[in-house]
Amino acid sequence: MHRIAVIGASGYTGVELLRLLSLHPDTELVCVTSRQYAGQLVSDVFPSLRGIVDLSFEDVDPLALAGRADLVFTAVPHQTAMGMIPALLAVGCRVVDLSADFRISDVEVYEEWYQEHTARELLVEAVYGLPELFREKISEARLIANPGCYPTSVALALAPLLEKGLIDHKTIIVDSKSGTSGAGRAAKVDTLYCEVNEGFKAYSLPRHRHTPEIEQSLTRLAGETVRISFTPHLLPVNRGILSTCYASLTDMMSLAALHEVYLDKYSAENFVRVLPKGKFPNIAQVRGSNYCDIGLSVDERTGRVIVLSAIDNLVKGAAGQAIQNMNLMLTLPENQGLLLPPVFP
Amino acid sequence: MHRIAVIGASGYTGVELLRLLSLHPDTELVCVTSRQYAGQLVSDVFPSLRGIVDLSFEDVDPLALAGRADLVFTAVPHQTAMGMIPALLAVGCRVVDLSADFRISDVEVYEEWYQEHTARELLVEAVYGLPELFREKISEARLIANPGCYPTSVALALAPLLEKGLIDHKTIIVDSKSGTSGAGRAAKVDTLYCEVNEGFKAYSLPRHRHTPEIEQSLTRLAGETVRISFTPHLLPVNRGILSTCYASLTDMMSLAALHEVYLDKYSAENFVRVLPKGKFPNIAQVRGSNYCDIGLSVDERTGRVIVLSAIDNLVKGAAGQAIQNMNLMLTLPENQGLLLPPVFP
Amino acid sequence: MHRIAVIGASGYTGVELLRLLSLHPDTELVCVTSRQYAGQLVSDVFPSLRGIVDLSFEDVDPLALAGRADLVFTAVPHQTAMGMIPALLAVGCRVVDLSADFRISDVEVYEEWYQEHTARELLVEAVYGLPELFREKISEARLIANPGCYPTSVALALAPLLEKGLIDHKTIIVDSKSGTSGAGRAAKVDTLYCEVNEGFKAYSLPRHRHTPEIEQSLTRLAGETVRISFTPHLLPVNRGILSTCYASLTDMMSLAALHEVYLDKYSAENFVRVLPKGKFPNIAQVRGSNYCDIGLSVDERTGRVIVLSAIDNLVKGAAGQAIQNMNLMLTLPENQGLLLPPVFP
Amino acid sequence: MHRIAVIGASGYTGVELLRLLSLHPDTELVCVTSRQYAGQLVSDVFPSLRGIVDLSFEDVDPLALAGRADLVFTAVPHQTAMGMIPALLAVGCRVVDLSADFRISDVEVYEEWYQEHTARELLVEAVYGLPELFREKISEARLIANPGCYPTSVALALAPLLEKGLIDHKTIIVDSKSGTSGAGRAAKVDTLYCEVNEGFKAYSLPRHRHTPEIEQSLTRLAGETVRISFTPHLLPVNRGILSTCYASLTDMMSLAALHEVYLDKYSAENFVRVLPKGKFPNIAQVRGSNYCDIGLSVDERTGRVIVLSAIDNLVKGAAGQAIQNMNLMLTLPENQGLLLPPVFP
Repeated sequence: MHRIAVIGASGYTGVELLRLLSLHPDTELVCVTSRQYAGQLVSDVFPSLRGIVDLSFEDVDPLALAGRADLVFTAVPHQTAMGMIPALLAVGCRVVDLSADFRISDVEVYEEWYQEHTARELLVEAVYGLPELFREKISEARLIANPGCYPTSVALALAPLLEKGLIDHKTIIVDSKSGTSGAGRAAKVDTLYCEVNEGFKAYSLPRHRHTPEIEQSLTRLAGETVRISFTPHLLPVNRGILSTCYASLTDMMSLAALHEVYLDKYSAENFVRVLPKGKFPNIAQVRGSNYCDIGLSVDERTGRVIVLSAIDNLVKGAAGQAIQNMNLMLTLPENQGLLLPPVFP
Repeated sequence: MHRIAVIGASGYTGVELLRLLSLHPDTELVCVTSRQYAGQLVSDVFPSLRGIVDLSFEDVDPLALAGRADLVFTAVPHQTAMGMIPALLAVGCRVVDLSADFRISDVEVYEEWYQEHTARELLVEAVYGLPELFREKISEARLIANPGCYPTSVALALAPLLEKGLIDHKTIIVDSKSGTSGAGRAAKVDTLYCEVNEGFKAYSLPRHRHTPEIEQSLTRLAGETVRISFTPHLLPVNRGILSTCYASLTDMMSLAALHEVYLDKYSAENFVRVLPKGKFPNIAQVRGSNYCDIGLSVDERTGRVIVLSAIDNLVKGAAGQAIQNMNLMLTLPENQGLLLPPVFP
Repeated sequence: MHRIAVIGASGYTGVELLRLLSLHPDTELVCVTSRQYAGQLVSDVFPSLRGIVDLSFEDVDPLALAGRADLVFTAVPHQTAMGMIPALLAVGCRVVDLSADFRISDVEVYEEWYQEHTARELLVEAVYGLPELFREKISEARLIANPGCYPTSVALALAPLLEKGLIDHKTIIVDSKSGTSGAGRAAKVDTLYCEVNEGFKAYSLPRHRHTPEIEQSLTRLAGETVRISFTPHLLPVNRGILSTCYASLTDMMSLAALHEVYLDKYSAENFVRVLPKGKFPNIAQVRGSNYCDIGLSVDERTGRVIVLSAIDNLVKGAAGQAIQNMNLMLTLPENQGLLLPPVFP
Repeated sequence: MHRIAVIGASGYTGVELLRLLSLHPDTELVCVTSRQYAGQLVSDVFPSLRGIVDLSFEDVDPLALAGRADLVFTAVPHQTAMGMIPALLAVGCRVVDLSADFRISDVEVYEEWYQEHTARELLVEAVYGLPELFREKISEARLIANPGCYPTSVALALAPLLEKGLIDHKTIIVDSKSGTSGAGRAAKVDTLYCEVNEGFKAYSLPRHRHTPEIEQSLTRLAGETVRISFTPHLLPVNRGILSTCYASLTDMMSLAALHEVYLDKYSAENFVRVLPKGKFPNIAQVRGSNYCDIGLSVDERTGRVIVLSAIDNLVKGAAGQAIQNMNLMLTLPENQGLLLPPVFP
């Protein structure tokens, strides 16, 4: 049994990690931390986990995990993560970091969109943990930068097109819509029930912080610098991201041919489901699961391809992908503990 | 008092017409029809209107409205509308048609996207009733083609840019999201509560029937043929459309300059609210009202402008705009009965 | 024009007062206050009111309203209200207080359920403003205690039975369900979107503070002390209260006879709609309106009557009823500005 | 591997059975039937199951399951079920019936609330499958009547009180609220998204068909005839039932003492979680799981106990309990395949 700790387990990503880890046969949860809820039973803060997680939240120093945990998930805000991860690595823990701190390998780009980076030396070592696209280095990594939810949905949607040079990458527009759990569990007026319910809006225009992370993946896939327009919107649902991605085809292609390209790319993957031609994804059909569903459309009138991808932002967009990375790091089957069917309705 | 009839009043557009007409000081509702509910009290089918609308649904022949109604709203499906409107006009009723039948002036385009047109002779006469953009001919019209909900949101969003030639219209992409009342009140599995709730998906790709209507307006505004990519999505809310419109600027412009263009265009309008720079619309902020809220963003990294517009699909996208047209036809103040503040939360 | 101020206008009750006052023909809004948002445009805090309310929030001392406002709505928390109302009255303003501070006339009961009362001398003068049941003294009052949302729904539901002694009041059980706007607009984890959405729970068991207010009304109607069980629940909707009230009939009665009792009581009322026999209220059918819909059922197997009432907690349960009281105080028609049809869907 | 068939797998209970069976290690799904969708891939009708269930819907005669399936779940409407179950038993299949047809052992009661019973001879043999209360006969049964969703939530809530005679059963009132999946997947106007969303109402007053089933269980537990008032309401959520149960205590008891009674009864159960004193259940905390959460309150002012129970109507209220029964019938661990943590948020 691998010993696992979750640091910052009192947000929505944290509680989802606890749910998924409770189903994992090869791990033992040894420590969950939360400054805010230290000393309280996990099941008092998250009654869904009553009878499932018997621990109390701790407020421990990272150094105290030495010899106690083999692998640590850090589910804390960016900037907080970079403050504790060097110590975790130093005491021999491997780390899957769910913050943004180690996702951008170019420190100048990171500092342009976030703030000063205080653990730059780890940026070279950190591995971007999107297994379907960049699987090779994950298993040996000490530090995984677990991808953002939007970047996961977009990179999986566009990878086959960019790898084969089928689109003009200067024309890429990504219109994404996320469920409200992506906004976190902090008490803010903006995410109160009555502010979100029956509403819909764009936010963070025109510079959402996931833009450079998306562009980094697309650039790596395309082999040249990609710059996109990215507009996130807030959906009145708990979970799910749908990304609608537009691009001009370099040469007109049939839907059938494009569909084949996607099947070639993803048919061996556990967690990417390329839908039949003419079918489009719905976030309701991946809820609670680690799947990414992808649908394709060709707009012959304008020469554009439209790729739609749906994930559960808390699973494939966060906790599920983190466990997928953990499985690779621990040389377990990549899908171990993750073959949960979506919960519909 | 002008005598008003509503044909096909048992859908969501119909009940919204009844709500709004009940607040209108210069009209009297004389007849509401529904084949399905004929003989039943309106207030038994729509309990919200108990004590407000005292009529029963009738199932009358259009000819029977001769001398009984001065103006008729037809809120029936396309194809049904074209079957009854010639008779209504023949007996002297003026008509505001909320179906798609008279929106597309080019009969070939209509027949490509819908079906055969059986009242072609009226296509020349019908006036497209989007007052903010094409107000001039509405007051004299016998027959108004009330715009579709998506086309209203898109034409208002893009008109200032196209009229001034500020964007390359070949780059226009419209990503729209609509509340579920837009899908109608017919009993279908696809719009059951559990199918829609906590879900989100695109639909009708890549050829939604509102595409040619949108293109017709944009072409008229641009003065040359415009062809767009349009993707509608289904939102788990009752009411509201948010359209996110992307286009490349022909010459880079500042947000401030663009904002001025919009203020110039719309500041005298009753129902278009150009939001302050840096603010973006939310469908929750127009719910139940005839407003269209517009927000602007310039993506300097890619040279694109992003225009967001929000309307209530049942009001500015249907019944409210129909009454706005009625007011113009009856030479009443254009905003008569329509100055309802949005209902928030 | 009567000059109106709203103190504490940045909550959901406050914004609803502003919406409804904007539709009122005989009043002018002269001042809206908010400590938190002082100096900001109302329309920046509540974009729904852009173009409708042009004021900025102020942070004024009650004394400063002398000569400026004729009538003041206090929409602040209990305890805060009692701190400012004596001053408002002293400078000649009439007051409709939407807090709980003057609803309970027995100061000992108030202090048992709330905290110390610091304006006891006004408890005798304050008039409980539930017009349909206790209309007589409202018009002369200087200070109206506007009823709570739950108490309004329950008192209207049970009044005809208690006045006629048709039920054994020792058997009354009230199971109420409220939309989330009733929990206010303060930033709290408990009312975040993801905590409320797709959830349902009871709260404040077994001692919700509305219990003594409900019992005070029922006692007054029954002519003897009434004590009930009251359980409130939180509904994942923005607006609406449904109260399901159970009691044993003292003598078995037919549904038809009971229905007559309700029609006798309420048929002359503007805002109470007794539904036809066999129909039951739905909060969706009163949304955004000042109506209270009431339905009746007789359970012959157990000898119980079940009365269901639905209101919009922000309208008949707060701001709408406050304006109804204002109309009576200003000797305007009681329904002035309030005849808004519900917004469905 | 036990071979399993699901008859009537195209409703919400059916798709939930397929989800849960896909997680069960000891069964093989050999046949799923649906008249409506015969010939279509399960994954085309329920895209959530793409890659998980590879079967197509069949339209088979029950007799054709001879030798093909060991155990059959019938998830068809009442009356349809009784038409096919005798044949299924005749060919040697064991049956878990999710309809109401074999839940009421007194045929006269059944026929009063439903319609004529055409398989009366099986009523004696059928075992009511609520394991926590009536576990003993389940393992040997050929035919299990899987309990209704409301009856499960109520019987578990009240069993400890009735078994010990702690309440006056003539005072029992049950106010229940169910998510919309309980209304089924048939296309009806009443369950369209816009009819349910932002609404809340009671229905089937005063004679919902689950009443006699509830009373049968309570009578069995109490040892004398119990008659209750039961009011179901429709919640705007996909999943979940919360039942609020009221009764007068025969002798006043402390909350602590009552809490002990519940712990005694349920602490050995896998799927009943008695919450700590002062905590109350929320349907969000059992979503997607087989748990029933129970909370207690004592209203000292009126001498009543209030018991609240929450289940997922599709899991503990239907498919999960059916699999729990299956496990007992197949002498597998009762919790096999069912230890899924709730999905929150």
